[in-house]
Amino acid sequence: MDIIMKLRLSKRALKEDFQSSFVKIMLEVAAKGDLISFAGGLPNPESFPVEEIKAAANKVLETKGAYSLQYNSTEGYGPLREFIANRYKKQGIEIEASDILIANGSQQALDIISSCLIDPDDDVLVEDPSYLAALQSFHLYNPKIHTVNLNEDGADINEFKEAINKYNHKFFYSVPNFQNPTGITYTNAVREKIAEIMKGKDTFFVEDNPYGELRFKGEHQKSFGTYLGEQAILLGTFSKTVAPGMRLGWIACRQKELYAKMKDYKQLIDLHTGTFAQVVVSQYLEDNDYDEHIKKIIDLYGRQCNYMLEAMDKYLPKDMHWTHPEGGMFIWATLPKGIDAVELSRKAAEDGVVVVAGEPFYEAKRGLGTLRLNYTNSKPEDIDKGISILAKAIEKMRK
Amino acid sequence: MDIIMKLRLSKRALKEDFQSSFVKIMLEVAAKGDLISFAGGLPNPESFPVEEIKAAANKVLETKGAYSLQYNSTEGYGPLREFIANRYKKQGIEIEASDILIANGSQQALDIISSCLIDPDDDVLVEDPSYLAALQSFHLYNPKIHTVNLNEDGADINEFKEAINKYNHKFFYSVPNFQNPTGITYTNAVREKIAEIMKGKDTFFVEDNPYGELRFKGEHQKSFGTYLGEQAILLGTFSKTVAPGMRLGWIACRQKELYAKMKDYKQLIDLHTGTFAQVVVSQYLEDNDYDEHIKKIIDLYGRQCNYMLEAMDKYLPKDMHWTHPEGGMFIWATLPKGIDAVELSRKAAEDGVVVVAGEPFYEAKRGLGTLRLNYTNSKPEDIDKGISILAKAIEKMRK
Repeated sequence: MDIIMKLRLSKRALKEDFQSSFVKIMLEVAAKGDLISFAGGLPNPESFPVEEIKAAANKVLETKGAYSLQYNSTEGYGPLREFIANRYKKQGIEIEASDILIANGSQQALDIISSCLIDPDDDVLVEDPSYLAALQSFHLYNPKIHTVNLNEDGADINEFKEAINKYNHKFFYSVPNFQNPTGITYTNAVREKIAEIMKGKDTFFVEDNPYGELRFKGEHQKSFGTYLGEQAILLGTFSKTVAPGMRLGWIACRQKELYAKMKDYKQLIDLHTGTFAQVVVSQYLEDNDYDEHIKKIIDLYGRQCNYMLEAMDKYLPKDMHWTHPEGGMFIWATLPKGIDAVELSRKAAEDGVVVVAGEPFYEAKRGLGTLRLNYTNSKPEDIDKGISILAKAIEKMRK
Repeated sequence: MDIIMKLRLSKRALKEDFQSSFVKIMLEVAAKGDLISFAGGLPNPESFPVEEIKAAANKVLETKGAYSLQYNSTEGYGPLREFIANRYKKQGIEIEASDILIANGSQQALDIISSCLIDPDDDVLVEDPSYLAALQSFHLYNPKIHTVNLNEDGADINEFKEAINKYNHKFFYSVPNFQNPTGITYTNAVREKIAEIMKGKDTFFVEDNPYGELRFKGEHQKSFGTYLGEQAILLGTFSKTVAPGMRLGWIACRQKELYAKMKDYKQLIDLHTGTFAQVVVSQYLEDNDYDEHIKKIIDLYGRQCNYMLEAMDKYLPKDMHWTHPEGGMFIWATLPKGIDAVELSRKAAEDGVVVVAGEPFYEAKRGLGTLRLNYTNSKPEDIDKGISILAKAIEKMRK
């Protein structure tokens, strides 16, 4: 019955995935069964508003059942786009519902932006390290990727200025709040300088902001949308504040021509994002106090972060250091000199704890001895136990 | 506040959308307000199982609430993939759950296949006319598109043989059941010959089958999956049998290497299809008699099709002819000689009825005087009225 045929894949499909060797290690390590994991970036399911979503789904199916199950517009469900625009307005950012394009999570938003802006060999600027799945998305379109180092207060200003002046980047991709992987947040002072350097250039600032609402201490810093007007493309998502299983992200883009092209592309690739998920989440947002819900997540994550920082102080060697995030989901740790992070991630998994080495988050740098630790999705007792196992694994490697 | 920047779009974004001039006319015509429309391809919302989806959503949120709201695997929700594979098996097609990749509707399935198979200038074979949104999806990847004419029993065998022998096509894209736009179904005899011609070639048969379950008379014809084994890539969707607002389509692909590449690409472009929609629809399928539900849709669409055919017999001139579909959603009509379909679609809209000219469904042919008429989504009285308006518009153009 089976016919043997020669498979002729496209060049794009034949191209090795960016960082695939590291991703393979991460998958192998994660597949080792019942381990304590600080590897993922999953929100804590405890925070999902299950009852409220149930009430919203019932109301939607009772009052606009047929509408919620029918095809919808490519740009997305109107009331949901209104809600998103209004939240931007409350922050002083001039975004209208007509600037919002709903996507299947912000991963799709990255693909849409990349497709509409990147030609092969175009220059694109990213933070180093940066969000792995964003790098993978950009690499699909074969740009030249340039990097700027991160300091504790954001991108290094001098390097940024040099990079912006040297190349005519299509965009700078940044996660300015509680960055993935480092947890670093740009201060307002750094934001102002970065915005000043970018003004007048033909380079977009792509602000990816999945964690911005998850601040458990310190002061809210301003969105680049307030500094850069239509030069800023803002990405958001309900994955970290409502539920990732809804796959609802968005692009806020005030540049009308780009918006129109992105909408056309979205129509080509999947017509539109699921109506049912959009209408249910919109109903949920209408009938509940979203800020109150976010506050509960923040309280939970703040506690979890503290547990982890306390355990790190207690168990980890003194020649290590790490970030102290004010929000988000990750701590970024630097290992003692000479300890290889990839090797450590394998060894620690054998001992029962999964961590992610920093390597895949760097465009090119290797061997920096960095680790990303997620604190949102483990039980407190597991955090303590997991960090103590990690500490022992480090000591074993030192010998 | 606003910064004037030069927009530098990618070449892909700058490329004019395939058939965009026709799509513009279609949108203009459709925007004319409260008209009788035979233009869309929307399922009748009367057929949506609203109550059953509500019961499924409640059950899911009560029994696996957190799971249904969390991230999921790229290939899709296991039980849903099992259900799909089992339906293929019942038809005698050897498809396993591990061959199924869930997509955001079959429009995304088309993009995934195109991305993984088409390099610029690759040869791709399509029916003429073909499904417009599929043509648009392929054009994004810049192939050379070749066409084969359709007869009432399927693709023209001689033309098909010639086309297959002349070029080494990456795939042949076909909607063999109740085709969009023509409503034509391939007979088993034609299928056998087509399969015979394709065997041993390195060309995939992409069988897009959104309407196959919607047969209201005649005999079920065999899927190309039964003839072509791993040379067949099968596309399916719940959009026409459950609800399009869930955005749930799939690719069934037995070629393991291609499957793996398509899964990797899906991960890059949006991680995975919405968990909530998948789990709710899976629960709905588990708790209800799907065949019984489809029977209701078939009864409805069969009646609607009859109304339209009766009205066409009653009102339309004798020098027109049209298809008599045994299922699906469309009738394909050929106008009297000398009547331009695009012009007629404008005129008819002015008089209160929206129809789609055949032009955009052809890769290159123009002025064939064909119309696509959708009968699934209008009230019976509107069908009669709409066809009588159309008849008058045709007579006016004849003068």
